[in-house]
Amino acid sequence: MTLNTQTSQTPERSRRCAAEFAGTAFLLTVVVGSGIMGDRLSGGSVGLALLTNSLATGAGLVALILAFGPISGAHFNPLVSAAMAILGRLSVGDLAAYVAAQFAGALLGTMCAHAMFAEPVLTWSTHARAGGPQALSEFVATFGLLTVVLGVGRHRAEMAPLAVGAYVTAAYWFTASTAFANPAVTVARMTTNTFTGIRPMDVPAFLIAQTLGAATSVALVRWLAAPHPLDGALAQPRSTHGRPDHGIDG
Amino acid sequence: MTLNTQTSQTPERSRRCAAEFAGTAFLLTVVVGSGIMGDRLSGGSVGLALLTNSLATGAGLVALILAFGPISGAHFNPLVSAAMAILGRLSVGDLAAYVAAQFAGALLGTMCAHAMFAEPVLTWSTHARAGGPQALSEFVATFGLLTVVLGVGRHRAEMAPLAVGAYVTAAYWFTASTAFANPAVTVARMTTNTFTGIRPMDVPAFLIAQTLGAATSVALVRWLAAPHPLDGALAQPRSTHGRPDHGIDG
Amino acid sequence: MTLNTQTSQTPERSRRCAAEFAGTAFLLTVVVGSGIMGDRLSGGSVGLALLTNSLATGAGLVALILAFGPISGAHFNPLVSAAMAILGRLSVGDLAAYVAAQFAGALLGTMCAHAMFAEPVLTWSTHARAGGPQALSEFVATFGLLTVVLGVGRHRAEMAPLAVGAYVTAAYWFTASTAFANPAVTVARMTTNTFTGIRPMDVPAFLIAQTLGAATSVALVRWLAAPHPLDGALAQPRSTHGRPDHGIDG
Amino acid sequence: MTLNTQTSQTPERSRRCAAEFAGTAFLLTVVVGSGIMGDRLSGGSVGLALLTNSLATGAGLVALILAFGPISGAHFNPLVSAAMAILGRLSVGDLAAYVAAQFAGALLGTMCAHAMFAEPVLTWSTHARAGGPQALSEFVATFGLLTVVLGVGRHRAEMAPLAVGAYVTAAYWFTASTAFANPAVTVARMTTNTFTGIRPMDVPAFLIAQTLGAATSVALVRWLAAPHPLDGALAQPRSTHGRPDHGIDG
Repeated sequence: MTLNTQTSQTPERSRRCAAEFAGTAFLLTVVVGSGIMGDRLSGGSVGLALLTNSLATGAGLVALILAFGPISGAHFNPLVSAAMAILGRLSVGDLAAYVAAQFAGALLGTMCAHAMFAEPVLTWSTHARAGGPQALSEFVATFGLLTVVLGVGRHRAEMAPLAVGAYVTAAYWFTASTAFANPAVTVARMTTNTFTGIRPMDVPAFLIAQTLGAATSVALVRWLAAPHPLDGALAQPRSTHGRPDHGIDG
Repeated sequence: MTLNTQTSQTPERSRRCAAEFAGTAFLLTVVVGSGIMGDRLSGGSVGLALLTNSLATGAGLVALILAFGPISGAHFNPLVSAAMAILGRLSVGDLAAYVAAQFAGALLGTMCAHAMFAEPVLTWSTHARAGGPQALSEFVATFGLLTVVLGVGRHRAEMAPLAVGAYVTAAYWFTASTAFANPAVTVARMTTNTFTGIRPMDVPAFLIAQTLGAATSVALVRWLAAPHPLDGALAQPRSTHGRPDHGIDG
Repeated sequence: MTLNTQTSQTPERSRRCAAEFAGTAFLLTVVVGSGIMGDRLSGGSVGLALLTNSLATGAGLVALILAFGPISGAHFNPLVSAAMAILGRLSVGDLAAYVAAQFAGALLGTMCAHAMFAEPVLTWSTHARAGGPQALSEFVATFGLLTVVLGVGRHRAEMAPLAVGAYVTAAYWFTASTAFANPAVTVARMTTNTFTGIRPMDVPAFLIAQTLGAATSVALVRWLAAPHPLDGALAQPRSTHGRPDHGIDG
Repeated sequence: MTLNTQTSQTPERSRRCAAEFAGTAFLLTVVVGSGIMGDRLSGGSVGLALLTNSLATGAGLVALILAFGPISGAHFNPLVSAAMAILGRLSVGDLAAYVAAQFAGALLGTMCAHAMFAEPVLTWSTHARAGGPQALSEFVATFGLLTVVLGVGRHRAEMAPLAVGAYVTAAYWFTASTAFANPAVTVARMTTNTFTGIRPMDVPAFLIAQTLGAATSVALVRWLAAPHPLDGALAQPRSTHGRPDHGIDG
């Protein structure tokens, strides 16, 4: 439906999906790999392990969003892509292709981390993350992530890489679940029995909570950014509709 | 009194207050939540717990100010809003509404953190923070925060999110009180008996010291930025008076 | 072959090579020096030592790239310079001079760190870093570094210093090898028997893996950024060809 | 001699010196205060104490340079001011006034930190920092600081706050002396017998090494930035000569 907003500057879908695939793969390599390294070197201090895991993830995200943002928007997250589709910035066809690329990339990235650290390439996680507080944490984490992505993307898109990286580093700490906040990340982390893994049976609640958090955020941001009754200015703040050139909100 | 400076680009008051409410709520979720997580995972090392608490708060602030700044200015602090009113950038009606939203949001955010970490939703803190050095610390912390907000906002508003986040991370460490520097934050932290709490009986001295620090900063910044006797240039450095589009100084 | 793209704003080769020499020297001083300091002060916690080593390296890189980027492009890495030559942004003569300056600078910087910490000026490292996972780590680390450098440099060159610094801090943690990702750095680190050293016999595999990773990245980035069949816009995104004024992709 | 370059946008000297005084005072409050806090909370881990000290100092510097840069250039360092005078960007009269403000501010800031932490207001430090490696460290630290300040200030002045903050955080770790790199800071730290103090008898060697490092950097930067034989472009890269509005290079 938004195909008509594709400009001549938008890369072809195959290239954009390749960027989503490569970026999400690298994101999982960062998350899972730094979790293993932090765990191994922390001498039993979970606090130190999570500190290094959270700093590496946030810093890695800054670099990855800067690198791939100009190609695909650097969503790396099915719920970000879905929000963009709902807001009319991504076509339904693109959404399907992006999401497939993200799930596939996430799996490859996890395997890559395992290979670097001489862990089994794929195993089921036994790391329990169950219960209401965990689900609430995922709701809050994803609500916040989408609010940051959409809020920053609207007016300060050039700052989106920094905002998202900073948010994710913080969210490891202010949620009880360490803020997965991303269905592709969550599913991939079922397959690593290391520091950042999650038991398959705990995944459905995470996915539901994440989806609800994202939906709530989209509703909030839509209302916050709605035009004034007497003024249409905010309704069309940018002429970049359809262009993925300026960051995460493409 | 500054109503006449409201431009057609300023969102309605209800939306701006919603942004202050949501942003302040999220700030307290970050502060209180990361305090709990850091404390639980630090194995008794208060230094490690405060390090993670301070990094999460600073990083979270960067993201939140970037996300909500274009809507409301992202004050999240009654003393910042009061300073803006004194400097003629916020109407008295807006000030009252902002402050109410900030206090309400701070309470909600604290409750949200408790729910995520399965703590009692509201309890009085027993964490003593009393004495002259603590009060002096709050004076210094708030003086510095306002000086950064007003100084950066004047000429480099696009850098305000980074400046405030960096300042707050540092201030956790260079003050003896860990730099509350915000009445809404201080009052809300009475209601958490966790790492970041403060005994209710210690709050009045904090609020007085914070207010004095902010007032001193406003006086200093006003003098530093005063126009030259022979030159009016600095008196009108920007044409954005009344517009909250470019960051914390609204 | 690209000599004809040298503009009047490109500094002379001698000055650009001096910048590569000084910058690479300082980079090694940062890497080796902060490794020694972190190791000495960590009380046996390898996690804490690597955390300080990785933060110091990333932060130092941000400063060094900002300082020397306008002169030489701040490559500090023979594989970055080689990629620039392959992409037609650096002449073959410049490439040879850059690489020589980088290797010489790296050795001097290592000696400088040793002198500051009262270590022997040059010794062979006995730190084993062998095996397939280590080589794979170097492949991944260098692939990612080049992808970030080339991806960010293309559209957001002013953010390249932040992107590279953030990437390197993360890569210390998400690879099993702590991400040397740079032949000049690797060779120089043979000569320090401290925290960041590498046994000479392990160096060849590192260099081969780094080169393969860089080559793979160049191929990927070329394809991702290829022009549309019907649109030549992306093929000439910038008119700065040959100018090293705007960051790492000079 | 550069008085004729003062534009109508340059604040009066009294205001600029007040900014240097307040900024340098706050810098010492950050350095000394965070050193005390880190030391008290680290449970004997010098590595953790220095990590928090270095992060707080770097983050604080980012905020302070952003806040005071538009007024005075945010030198906070007699050697930076001297370099600016040598390069013709600060008059001799301004230099004298800046330096006096910096030394006085540094002393006040140290006293302020002591008051916040209930330490004696002023005491002589007994912290030994002697020997050739320490002096060499100060030479390297100051050489690097000036190179970053002058290099970034020339072409990317808006990034100077980030560059300087990042450099200083790194320099705590890659030098053996923790990088004082500033005569006003060094003299003030004689008066604190806490984590960041320095024995008075060790100060002269620090000051000499810092001065030599700064002088070497000025010579290098002058040569690196010299105009081409056939091209005067780089000799006049900016029209902002004499204006302190855009950051540290005033």
